[in-house]
Amino acid sequence: MNLKDKLFHLVEDQEQEMIQIRRHLHQHPELSFQESNTAEYIKNFYHNKDVSLKQPVSDAHAIIVEIKGGQPGKTIGLRADFDALPISEETEVPFKSQNEGVMHACGHDAHTAYLLGVANALIEVKEELSGTIKIIHQHAEELPPGGAQQILATGALTDVDEIYGIHIVPAVEPDTIAYNKNNAFAGSSTFTLTIKGLGGHAASPHKTHDALIAGTQFVNAIQTIVSRRIDPLDTGVITIGAFDAPGTANVIQDTVTIKGTARYLNDDLEQFMYQEIEKIAQSVALGFDVTYDLDYQFGYPVLYNHPTQTDNAAKVLTQSKGDYFQHLIEIPQVTGSEDFAYYLQQIPGTFYFIGSKPYNVDTPYMNHHPKFEVNEDCLLVAAKSLIDITLDRLQNA
Amino acid sequence: MNLKDKLFHLVEDQEQEMIQIRRHLHQHPELSFQESNTAEYIKNFYHNKDVSLKQPVSDAHAIIVEIKGGQPGKTIGLRADFDALPISEETEVPFKSQNEGVMHACGHDAHTAYLLGVANALIEVKEELSGTIKIIHQHAEELPPGGAQQILATGALTDVDEIYGIHIVPAVEPDTIAYNKNNAFAGSSTFTLTIKGLGGHAASPHKTHDALIAGTQFVNAIQTIVSRRIDPLDTGVITIGAFDAPGTANVIQDTVTIKGTARYLNDDLEQFMYQEIEKIAQSVALGFDVTYDLDYQFGYPVLYNHPTQTDNAAKVLTQSKGDYFQHLIEIPQVTGSEDFAYYLQQIPGTFYFIGSKPYNVDTPYMNHHPKFEVNEDCLLVAAKSLIDITLDRLQNA
Amino acid sequence: MNLKDKLFHLVEDQEQEMIQIRRHLHQHPELSFQESNTAEYIKNFYHNKDVSLKQPVSDAHAIIVEIKGGQPGKTIGLRADFDALPISEETEVPFKSQNEGVMHACGHDAHTAYLLGVANALIEVKEELSGTIKIIHQHAEELPPGGAQQILATGALTDVDEIYGIHIVPAVEPDTIAYNKNNAFAGSSTFTLTIKGLGGHAASPHKTHDALIAGTQFVNAIQTIVSRRIDPLDTGVITIGAFDAPGTANVIQDTVTIKGTARYLNDDLEQFMYQEIEKIAQSVALGFDVTYDLDYQFGYPVLYNHPTQTDNAAKVLTQSKGDYFQHLIEIPQVTGSEDFAYYLQQIPGTFYFIGSKPYNVDTPYMNHHPKFEVNEDCLLVAAKSLIDITLDRLQNA
Amino acid sequence: MNLKDKLFHLVEDQEQEMIQIRRHLHQHPELSFQESNTAEYIKNFYHNKDVSLKQPVSDAHAIIVEIKGGQPGKTIGLRADFDALPISEETEVPFKSQNEGVMHACGHDAHTAYLLGVANALIEVKEELSGTIKIIHQHAEELPPGGAQQILATGALTDVDEIYGIHIVPAVEPDTIAYNKNNAFAGSSTFTLTIKGLGGHAASPHKTHDALIAGTQFVNAIQTIVSRRIDPLDTGVITIGAFDAPGTANVIQDTVTIKGTARYLNDDLEQFMYQEIEKIAQSVALGFDVTYDLDYQFGYPVLYNHPTQTDNAAKVLTQSKGDYFQHLIEIPQVTGSEDFAYYLQQIPGTFYFIGSKPYNVDTPYMNHHPKFEVNEDCLLVAAKSLIDITLDRLQNA
Repeated sequence: MNLKDKLFHLVEDQEQEMIQIRRHLHQHPELSFQESNTAEYIKNFYHNKDVSLKQPVSDAHAIIVEIKGGQPGKTIGLRADFDALPISEETEVPFKSQNEGVMHACGHDAHTAYLLGVANALIEVKEELSGTIKIIHQHAEELPPGGAQQILATGALTDVDEIYGIHIVPAVEPDTIAYNKNNAFAGSSTFTLTIKGLGGHAASPHKTHDALIAGTQFVNAIQTIVSRRIDPLDTGVITIGAFDAPGTANVIQDTVTIKGTARYLNDDLEQFMYQEIEKIAQSVALGFDVTYDLDYQFGYPVLYNHPTQTDNAAKVLTQSKGDYFQHLIEIPQVTGSEDFAYYLQQIPGTFYFIGSKPYNVDTPYMNHHPKFEVNEDCLLVAAKSLIDITLDRLQNA
Repeated sequence: MNLKDKLFHLVEDQEQEMIQIRRHLHQHPELSFQESNTAEYIKNFYHNKDVSLKQPVSDAHAIIVEIKGGQPGKTIGLRADFDALPISEETEVPFKSQNEGVMHACGHDAHTAYLLGVANALIEVKEELSGTIKIIHQHAEELPPGGAQQILATGALTDVDEIYGIHIVPAVEPDTIAYNKNNAFAGSSTFTLTIKGLGGHAASPHKTHDALIAGTQFVNAIQTIVSRRIDPLDTGVITIGAFDAPGTANVIQDTVTIKGTARYLNDDLEQFMYQEIEKIAQSVALGFDVTYDLDYQFGYPVLYNHPTQTDNAAKVLTQSKGDYFQHLIEIPQVTGSEDFAYYLQQIPGTFYFIGSKPYNVDTPYMNHHPKFEVNEDCLLVAAKSLIDITLDRLQNA
Repeated sequence: MNLKDKLFHLVEDQEQEMIQIRRHLHQHPELSFQESNTAEYIKNFYHNKDVSLKQPVSDAHAIIVEIKGGQPGKTIGLRADFDALPISEETEVPFKSQNEGVMHACGHDAHTAYLLGVANALIEVKEELSGTIKIIHQHAEELPPGGAQQILATGALTDVDEIYGIHIVPAVEPDTIAYNKNNAFAGSSTFTLTIKGLGGHAASPHKTHDALIAGTQFVNAIQTIVSRRIDPLDTGVITIGAFDAPGTANVIQDTVTIKGTARYLNDDLEQFMYQEIEKIAQSVALGFDVTYDLDYQFGYPVLYNHPTQTDNAAKVLTQSKGDYFQHLIEIPQVTGSEDFAYYLQQIPGTFYFIGSKPYNVDTPYMNHHPKFEVNEDCLLVAAKSLIDITLDRLQNA
Repeated sequence: MNLKDKLFHLVEDQEQEMIQIRRHLHQHPELSFQESNTAEYIKNFYHNKDVSLKQPVSDAHAIIVEIKGGQPGKTIGLRADFDALPISEETEVPFKSQNEGVMHACGHDAHTAYLLGVANALIEVKEELSGTIKIIHQHAEELPPGGAQQILATGALTDVDEIYGIHIVPAVEPDTIAYNKNNAFAGSSTFTLTIKGLGGHAASPHKTHDALIAGTQFVNAIQTIVSRRIDPLDTGVITIGAFDAPGTANVIQDTVTIKGTARYLNDDLEQFMYQEIEKIAQSVALGFDVTYDLDYQFGYPVLYNHPTQTDNAAKVLTQSKGDYFQHLIEIPQVTGSEDFAYYLQQIPGTFYFIGSKPYNVDTPYMNHHPKFEVNEDCLLVAAKSLIDITLDRLQNA
């Protein structure tokens, strides 16, 4: 039996365990940067296993497990995130969240489960491997600045030659693997603009500096950033999510608060959109006699799936198509964000998708929905696909 | 001693009592339509006095006191309002509000005090009067639909020939009486516009109908009602007091709520501004694929000071200038609203101002401010001016 | 026969002559600052009359005729303007303009005709007058900076104690005289805003600075000057008359030109509106990466009818009501402009209206319309009203 | 010598003739649908050659030349357009346009020249070919609805199996060939929106329906089509090229005319953008009491380069790289439009680019510029690349 078959058998044998792990984590979700029990649970998993385990970030919960093969070779990073979201679960699964207001609604429980399965299998056969695998259990993907940057900053991954990761998505069933190349996930920034004018009586606007009117002019003017200032061939979005100016009909307010996000699929736009938003805020302040404070936070950058690694992964998976999954599709860019982007700024690799749609569901609840559910058949598919790619990379150095 | 001198002496003797009444009311303010203790206090004042007292509005607190003179003649209405505001008092007067969150911040305590003083004096001399005085203690001026309409609807004032009222204002000291003629106080309407779109993820605006964007377009477009659609010689204001769309940067909201007020000094604009606001709401709904609900409340109408009665009052007061006050000024229209307007739609009369600015204060706190204070010297001036005008109207039938 | 009756008879006798003069001028209209034949015609009228005649403005056509009375007294100025408009006449009167493209469409022909009638009558009786009349035949009222300023700058009117003028208006028939007091005619400014961006291909807006978009934002933002920045009790209008950006669908333009006017009935607004317009132009330039050039011209100021002189004129005319006219009405402010405003900045007086509506016309063509017509009965009414007021001023010094 | 080498030698021998043809056409440009002399010139070229020549469009100048090979096989279409633009040439080439105001500023002269070269060579060897080549000399590419649709409508191309075309571009030198796949050129529509209001005097906006203000609101509101209504991953542009509202500062206009274009790289957006533009025009008409007329013209659709044919052409050209050119690059989508799109809606094929930048020029003048110049070395490269692809398609049926 060749090494790949051996590994596939090992993860097949572990399928129920992966499911149990995933359900345990689902019942005990923890918010970003607060995942102490989850980290403890993961550490216990490796207890008595012949691997070196590090927690490189001094005050956070990331765990890096190094699996050293019997022969020298490349170092391959495999990453799964393990934090949950501030969402109240609304599913009726028996292993529903026991931490009210917190939910694994993005599938990080599943990510961790299959990566533990993969790790376990690789550890079993490690003497037969040429090279090293670094299993990266990442904290805090959901909350910028995110865990990836922190791990990279420690230098713990400087020896990693290539890195791979997966996200599960309920758009398709587990028989489908999807990938995209080059700029693949949007970068995003968020901002809070506070406009301060001078309030007063509704009947005497001339004695005020109407912050609310200035605010609506700002919202109006920034439409032109996307409509006129960005290359039509680029992708950019600016959404205003909040215009917070409660009050009564008869009083002109002093202050309004506007919150928004900018998204982009071209890293040049990160700075450009910030500059244009600030410029328009300045302009409105000048024209409407108000002052402003712009708190602008750059979020995760554009995620760049390296073409060489992506094409290679696609080639490897194509050879397995019909075996443990049926469809391999290339998909367009997505406007969501992922802090895996930071790894790919420094290390070649790719980040791809496994379907997790429950069977017989037409309109599945998507990630971040309180009714999000996972088809656990995805665990084995994810595990095997990672093994497929990892073995290829170690064997074809 | 002539009747006027007699009445002036009577109110001079009552000055301390008027001050006590005003302070008592100030300590025990009650919100509009909830003024039961205040009404009880007023009724007690008339206890054992030879007048007929009615509470014409079945489920509200208005009190009408009829003082019948010894001889027949005109019937003159004198009105003071007695409700307070939902404001937490921030003054340091010893008779500060004992009803936390409620305050006589508009001077209705003073209005009631001087009108009680005037009523008492007139009762004393009633045999010498030719005609009838109806003392109108009105509830609920601050909260549309207001008390005036309710009183009028009972028919209790159908026999009133002329009606007069006063508002105190801290813009000037009590040595000054001010008046204006024709359209004098603005009419006002208030509205709440709820825009319903379809929310969604900030990165996918094309899957939503962005209510927030529709809302800012509405606010923007309605500027043209005042700037382009109203006769520049007319007065109109539309203020948006609230744009209530709280939320997070990353989520496009379903619904936004906008609150505003329209003010006007020409009754034709009441309907016109409503129609234009509704038209623009419709237009935005059409253009931005959202629906809307416009809850539009017509408030108090334009207050029309009848020229004949106003000119006559000015003539009468001019004769007293230098006696109990020093300055009589004609002022421009004001953009505030008053439900005295309803009386003047049916009964000739005028509504004027007495200064109530504390001495040695440069920038007094205005009506409705939590630090609003009253120079109690205004009580006697108000009382005497009402006596002046009332006597003139009875004697010059 | 008293002096007034004598003067009235004199102008009655001259009615046909006034009509002939008016028709002659109507046939030979001349544009502002180009009225050489008109001025020659006026000078000829005074030929051989015992008056002193001056053309005080060195390179313009103003004529001032001084009629010195037999006795000393006040100096009263009476002014009529004599320039025409660049309009092609569309009436069918037999004395239609013979100067194609130029028309007395504002009634200055009539103004000059009745003032010549008045002058002639006063000259006839001048020995009986106590005081001096300065007849001011003014050039160039229609074209800012206008003739009034030029005449005042020469010092030719420094000895004038009071000044009066009339405009005919087809809103009512000649049996009606109308007046208003205080700020009576709007001040006006005009501006041309040139916005310079960087043009380019319609498909690549990101390579351009779109001046057209900046221009529409400017037009949009300035709506808030009237809607939010001016006291609702004040009168202000800003109209954009031109947005000059012709072109083809496929090309983004470099430059757009916007022309507008600001009107106001409060002199403070002249500077204020300018400042706000400039501020918004700056703001748009900043926010949309364009440059601008604002050519802003202050036009005629607010015309202030002095209350003392206006009230007095109204009193005098009231005494004649029922004689040579039937109705004397006080009217609201008007949003048109008049360079008579400059005289009233330095000299007390008033400027009023005589009806000139043709009989049996429901909807007359207004001033500046190519079908504007004059009911010539207004000539005698205007002449008599000026005599009325002038005699009163001389006799009640 | 194999067939390809023979054909390459034939076109090499004709290089000077291709240059002469191109210069002749350059000197005698003709506007779209008016290319009678050009068509005559092309027909003369084929005179006495053993081919069938048709002019399929009854009242236009298209010419289709059928080159039948000695053996049966596929039918391959090769297309070049031959119309010129209404541009006044500003180059200083010795063969400058002799038709003032008309210029081959888009390179169609070169397109025709190399296609004639290719046709001539193929005719020489036609007995050795297996299959048929249809040489399509197309009229009127520059002016929608364009010539391509007209040719297709005749059925003249129903037997064509694959079709290829080239555009020269001065972005790069002739050593470079560029291609792109799938949706490659934008679709475009153009529109003229006429807004009719009611004009009037600048001082009385309330008596008007201000079409200019409505127009600026339209321009403002349509920004949200691109910024909020189109999938951020799609490409859409709406440019307003003209806002035609000349006039004077003092007059509110009746009518404004707005011209714009919409561009898109997804055919679904053609209808969608039209609907949104119309919807916003309706909305503005409703909200601003004006009427509108929207003349909306769908232009050329999105050009879809079929992936199979494009990949194959790229493979073929890759084999020749280093021979007659040096660089083969895959480029992003372009926002220009091409009526070759119509052919590709019915026939598989691809449309690609040959560099035409003059040597030693940093910033070349682009297509449609009056100083546009062509590096004539591109002619041979274009000819050889067409031969390369054509032979491959005939030989690999």
